[in-house]
Amino acid sequence: MDFAPSPRAQDLADRVRTFIDSEIAPVEEEAHRFAAEARESGGDPWAVPPVLRELQAKAREQGLWNLWLPAGHEGEYAERYGTDGGVGLSNTDYAPVAEQTGRSFLAPMVFNCNAPDTGNMEVLLKYGTQEQRDRWLDPLLDGRIRSGFAMTEPDAASSDATNMQATAVVDGDEVVVNGRKWWTTGAGHPDCEVFIFMGRSEDPDADRHHQHTMVLVPRDTPGVEVVRLLPAMGRYDEPLGHGELRFTDVRVPRANVLVGEGQAFEIAQGRLGPGRVHHCMRLIGLAERALELACERGTRRTAFGKPLINLGGNRERVAQARIAIDSARLLVLHAAWLLDTQGPWGALSQVSQIKVAVPRMAQEVIDFAMQVHGGGGLSDDFPLAGAWTQARALRLADGPDEVHLGMVARLELSKYKD
Amino acid sequence: MDFAPSPRAQDLADRVRTFIDSEIAPVEEEAHRFAAEARESGGDPWAVPPVLRELQAKAREQGLWNLWLPAGHEGEYAERYGTDGGVGLSNTDYAPVAEQTGRSFLAPMVFNCNAPDTGNMEVLLKYGTQEQRDRWLDPLLDGRIRSGFAMTEPDAASSDATNMQATAVVDGDEVVVNGRKWWTTGAGHPDCEVFIFMGRSEDPDADRHHQHTMVLVPRDTPGVEVVRLLPAMGRYDEPLGHGELRFTDVRVPRANVLVGEGQAFEIAQGRLGPGRVHHCMRLIGLAERALELACERGTRRTAFGKPLINLGGNRERVAQARIAIDSARLLVLHAAWLLDTQGPWGALSQVSQIKVAVPRMAQEVIDFAMQVHGGGGLSDDFPLAGAWTQARALRLADGPDEVHLGMVARLELSKYKD
Amino acid sequence: MDFAPSPRAQDLADRVRTFIDSEIAPVEEEAHRFAAEARESGGDPWAVPPVLRELQAKAREQGLWNLWLPAGHEGEYAERYGTDGGVGLSNTDYAPVAEQTGRSFLAPMVFNCNAPDTGNMEVLLKYGTQEQRDRWLDPLLDGRIRSGFAMTEPDAASSDATNMQATAVVDGDEVVVNGRKWWTTGAGHPDCEVFIFMGRSEDPDADRHHQHTMVLVPRDTPGVEVVRLLPAMGRYDEPLGHGELRFTDVRVPRANVLVGEGQAFEIAQGRLGPGRVHHCMRLIGLAERALELACERGTRRTAFGKPLINLGGNRERVAQARIAIDSARLLVLHAAWLLDTQGPWGALSQVSQIKVAVPRMAQEVIDFAMQVHGGGGLSDDFPLAGAWTQARALRLADGPDEVHLGMVARLELSKYKD
Amino acid sequence: MDFAPSPRAQDLADRVRTFIDSEIAPVEEEAHRFAAEARESGGDPWAVPPVLRELQAKAREQGLWNLWLPAGHEGEYAERYGTDGGVGLSNTDYAPVAEQTGRSFLAPMVFNCNAPDTGNMEVLLKYGTQEQRDRWLDPLLDGRIRSGFAMTEPDAASSDATNMQATAVVDGDEVVVNGRKWWTTGAGHPDCEVFIFMGRSEDPDADRHHQHTMVLVPRDTPGVEVVRLLPAMGRYDEPLGHGELRFTDVRVPRANVLVGEGQAFEIAQGRLGPGRVHHCMRLIGLAERALELACERGTRRTAFGKPLINLGGNRERVAQARIAIDSARLLVLHAAWLLDTQGPWGALSQVSQIKVAVPRMAQEVIDFAMQVHGGGGLSDDFPLAGAWTQARALRLADGPDEVHLGMVARLELSKYKD
Repeated sequence: MDFAPSPRAQDLADRVRTFIDSEIAPVEEEAHRFAAEARESGGDPWAVPPVLRELQAKAREQGLWNLWLPAGHEGEYAERYGTDGGVGLSNTDYAPVAEQTGRSFLAPMVFNCNAPDTGNMEVLLKYGTQEQRDRWLDPLLDGRIRSGFAMTEPDAASSDATNMQATAVVDGDEVVVNGRKWWTTGAGHPDCEVFIFMGRSEDPDADRHHQHTMVLVPRDTPGVEVVRLLPAMGRYDEPLGHGELRFTDVRVPRANVLVGEGQAFEIAQGRLGPGRVHHCMRLIGLAERALELACERGTRRTAFGKPLINLGGNRERVAQARIAIDSARLLVLHAAWLLDTQGPWGALSQVSQIKVAVPRMAQEVIDFAMQVHGGGGLSDDFPLAGAWTQARALRLADGPDEVHLGMVARLELSKYKD
Repeated sequence: MDFAPSPRAQDLADRVRTFIDSEIAPVEEEAHRFAAEARESGGDPWAVPPVLRELQAKAREQGLWNLWLPAGHEGEYAERYGTDGGVGLSNTDYAPVAEQTGRSFLAPMVFNCNAPDTGNMEVLLKYGTQEQRDRWLDPLLDGRIRSGFAMTEPDAASSDATNMQATAVVDGDEVVVNGRKWWTTGAGHPDCEVFIFMGRSEDPDADRHHQHTMVLVPRDTPGVEVVRLLPAMGRYDEPLGHGELRFTDVRVPRANVLVGEGQAFEIAQGRLGPGRVHHCMRLIGLAERALELACERGTRRTAFGKPLINLGGNRERVAQARIAIDSARLLVLHAAWLLDTQGPWGALSQVSQIKVAVPRMAQEVIDFAMQVHGGGGLSDDFPLAGAWTQARALRLADGPDEVHLGMVARLELSKYKD
Repeated sequence: MDFAPSPRAQDLADRVRTFIDSEIAPVEEEAHRFAAEARESGGDPWAVPPVLRELQAKAREQGLWNLWLPAGHEGEYAERYGTDGGVGLSNTDYAPVAEQTGRSFLAPMVFNCNAPDTGNMEVLLKYGTQEQRDRWLDPLLDGRIRSGFAMTEPDAASSDATNMQATAVVDGDEVVVNGRKWWTTGAGHPDCEVFIFMGRSEDPDADRHHQHTMVLVPRDTPGVEVVRLLPAMGRYDEPLGHGELRFTDVRVPRANVLVGEGQAFEIAQGRLGPGRVHHCMRLIGLAERALELACERGTRRTAFGKPLINLGGNRERVAQARIAIDSARLLVLHAAWLLDTQGPWGALSQVSQIKVAVPRMAQEVIDFAMQVHGGGGLSDDFPLAGAWTQARALRLADGPDEVHLGMVARLELSKYKD
Repeated sequence: MDFAPSPRAQDLADRVRTFIDSEIAPVEEEAHRFAAEARESGGDPWAVPPVLRELQAKAREQGLWNLWLPAGHEGEYAERYGTDGGVGLSNTDYAPVAEQTGRSFLAPMVFNCNAPDTGNMEVLLKYGTQEQRDRWLDPLLDGRIRSGFAMTEPDAASSDATNMQATAVVDGDEVVVNGRKWWTTGAGHPDCEVFIFMGRSEDPDADRHHQHTMVLVPRDTPGVEVVRLLPAMGRYDEPLGHGELRFTDVRVPRANVLVGEGQAFEIAQGRLGPGRVHHCMRLIGLAERALELACERGTRRTAFGKPLINLGGNRERVAQARIAIDSARLLVLHAAWLLDTQGPWGALSQVSQIKVAVPRMAQEVIDFAMQVHGGGGLSDDFPLAGAWTQARALRLADGPDEVHLGMVARLELSKYKD
């Protein structure tokens, strides 16, 4: 057993950290104010803040680009768009790197490592045809376009994907797409050019896990409509945004189908696993950042004659936060290691475990940090209120806690069935 | 021991509930969209939605106005501006009424029962001179003007009021006011015309609990500046808003001082006690509303072949929520009854107890309801995300949990000191 | 709404408290060591400590006897065996009295208010024939004999009573009783002379809630065997004890049947409701006692230069305990008041609510007190370890938490069914 | 990063598991009944059950003996008394082995790996003179004698060791030992021949961390008295027992001092670190065993027409238990790895972290398992009630949670001090 990170992972994590501290941190507030200021001044709140484009260019120059590219699947792309010399990172190696990117809201976008684009790129990398990759994966890896994932629906409990009502039906050389989707993150981005859409294929002969199809739908196809952008806990998360979409008799070439008709469930599993792990990796970094803020504020401010951190049960909460973060990090690393060594099916329970445990841990640590900041903790003067919203949203995104607990229980109890 | 509400309390609670269901609920969403739509269309997001003014007029016609007016302090005002015939409500009687107003974000404003105006009116009622009352209390009770309370400061841990840095120094017939304040709720309202300001009197001879003065500062006094309006967990809470204020050499007549120089602590205690209890009463209603939404959604939507509410541990969470709400309500009623029968000093521990217990309870119940609503729970299509923010903010507003726990502990342990 | 206890309740509670402090407390440890010392010295650990008999006599002299006798059901018995002049106490009035008895393990036995005898007496009072009462109720109220309740079974999940396997089948003028039972508290007591036994009547025509019969089985009937006495969390709880019983072709007169064949469920409901409430009332007193011990120890002992109670989060835990106890007490009082004013069906949810909430609260408060006592908290030098066991056992006795949560959820959700 | 156990650790863990399942499990209940039966029949409850001696002999034959011997400190002893060929195990390698021994109460004694003997042997190994080792370590490693550790005192909060009142004062060639100690585990064992005693040296010149001395006190020295054996949560834990000891003018040779006068704190740190980790390793196994029992019972028993495990929130509790156990195991392994790679000072926070987190986790998992077992969970028919007591005691033994949280907080906050 060896808990030391590999030299490469350590080096990349250090470089990412340095970049965040020296390049991103000083402009992060400016970037965040961009949308609000645009609204006040009649500008476009959904434009990309210029500083973000500049940071992306700088990051890329330093080779800190597409760090998520998975070892074994990176193909030629790591060499063209990735970090150092054509080799992607294992999940275990990506973990400490992604943790660092989680310290800043901007960082994942800066390094082209943000959801949902990474998940969509991963789909294209693993399941796309060469034609699909040339058209969509290349510009995504290059940062020229953005994408969305249209799976969740407003009119059905989408945690049970068989509830899905939208359709993607083959009609000759085309696929006809209909239905309503929401929480399609990225739909607000001006560069968003394509959605991965999932719908029922309406194939009466298929079993219930082969009745859904995934298809690439260019955003400018007639019949595609972004009805509105949804606030999550009051925030629009510009420039990505969370879209409610309506697809009305949208026709795309059959060549846009991913893998084949009825294969959506398999792709969804392959897409969501790593995505969940990446979210958890980043939340570790976010929680660390929150704890740091709590300790900094708590040791500097005083009340009733003592540093805040020495009042009431605050020191115990610092200790509990440290224990909670360290436990969660180890759980994430272990899941990543299982993904690397045993593949997605060998890490099924562990991925669901971290999806439940890590956002809750982060919420709790951030909540404590907010409390230490008093009114400031509720404001946007500190990144805490936004961090909390992010952690909270992840208790629903990519499957609510309850579904993941159900999965962990099912796998555990399967040992006891005869 | 008798847990039945008085006939009058029951009647008022019923009428308020009917008003909310029939008059407010149908337009609540419209009122909430007002600010966002104003922003989109270049209008004034801080204007008062016309529908709110209409609702206020209707409520007043029905005698549902200033229900908070406290029995024993209401004086002539209950007759002129209150409910029925010149008698205010006891805390115990107000509790079920206020609970109903907590079911809707708009309702407290509709019935002229919203913080911080009620607290400010209470200060004027109990501590104001006739002149101060004529000038400020009358129009406040009449709903013609609004007010703010400027106590919390950005540069000091304000939970320890002796940390306060702002000053209110007598200079001849005037008081000179200087300093920075924030979280002055109401500062965004177009009708906000006066602040109750608290600052150090800089009296070297006074003991530490007599070194602060409260003074009425008209908003249009030179030197008063609303620097910005603060989002709380991303929300501006229009039309009230939470202001950051700067007071620079602001001069007001000495007659604007409340009670007398150095008396601010006493007034603050008298003001904050009932305010905290009112917040808690309303949170009970808010939590009930969230549980109803959870049960409605949970019994209607299905996943994996069952109503959502029957999945995983959801039914246990319904039961836990019921237990938590009922316990919290009883604790609030008991505190109200103690306030009525033993006065503020006899209810000191209980008021702090509910201030800690009730927002946490509400947060937990609302969190569960959000989870049952899936992505919808994060959106503003349901009142849950906003409700959660309200409960969360109340773990800091009017004293953070930690300070109230400290108070409860101090009173408990005082029994053991020799 | 009026939270003040009635003068009678207050007076009785005060007298009970005084009796406990002056008469019971000084000999409680001696009584508790009785069984252990008997074991060491080859005596009978199941004998009744003589001091207990003496205390009972004293209590009775002071009229503190059978305080549980329920108003409206007490009949002639309150006059003969009860407190003052022929009137039983309402549940609301009994609550503060029972709370005091909960402060001491011995007290319920001293005042003839202990489970399971109170529940069994209540069954006889409400459901017994005059003959059954003369034979069993009279000596029970008089304290001459003790009794057991044989419902739970080792071989089935007894929380679902329809799982029951034991039988009570009418055969001419007799009832034939067969089966295994366990957790029959009181079975170890030398004066235990009768069991209320519940078994399947094996009536094929009855619906599933009328297939069980309750019957009085004298302990000395041939075929009745106390197989062993069970430790609960390592404790035998002498002199009552928890018995595992075997009934083999036990024949008793048909006149021993309670109410009638097939009526057991109705009786069980009537018996268990008040029993659960009494347990909860006592647990409030037990938790108060634990908190007192924690505060006493915590303010007297020092470590790291401070009183223990000022270390870490201890003061916050004192505050949380105060909030938890006060909430729980109010919840219990409210359930008692509902029982009084609306009867058992009107308090169904509330009784289950307190059955879940109160033992957990007590466990937590006691756990904190143990922690403050260091190693002493685990020992029997303080009543904490025993108190904890008592609270823990009550999360299973009279229905596990899970079943009561299910009941609360069912009643809550019944509002939403169409 | 590599989470795979080494082949040697895996092999030993497997062999230990097999031994427990095939040799210990079948006789465990018999061994546990030994003391109770001795009490009933007038025998000696403190005798060693013969089956334990037999199991020790068998284990030793298979080389499963003194597995705790630490790599790098094992010296010649691993060859003579240890497992395979003279090499002790690293902490990382011992972890999975110790986890297995935690599944059974008897196992640690069977493999000569039980506290407090391992800790005492470790002290002799690391700090003993050759003479001290020859006299005490040899027979301890050989299993011929047992030992106790006399540190905690009844009259002072011993979590602050500077509170200690007992004395160990040099007087010429002797050390004079006085004072009261309790919770000296092992003091009830018939083979217990020596105590490691810690007391104040009363050296006015020494700083506060050099005022205590550790000294070896043979049990048969005049003035040594085992006043009584203490129950922990009602259990005596025979044959080890927890002793209250009185030392009255006990004189031992100065050669019995460990390391030197005033060196007790350093030794205590060195002794307690690994001991805490071993406890935590075993608790992981205990929690796994409890979860297995819960799943087995829960899938086999039915109520309300379903397996118990499918009722209410039980499946979620299974999932939460899996997450909690896996997190805790990783935290323990990480602490062990830090001990191996950075030594005790590099693992200071982590050892305190697991000391807090692991017993709580175990308590919660075991509590759930008890609840699934209904009344059986409270009885001694299942190992759950005993397991719970063990986990609970470890929240106080070797330092209460609060002290360890304080340590974690101190180390965390030291990063923020200037």
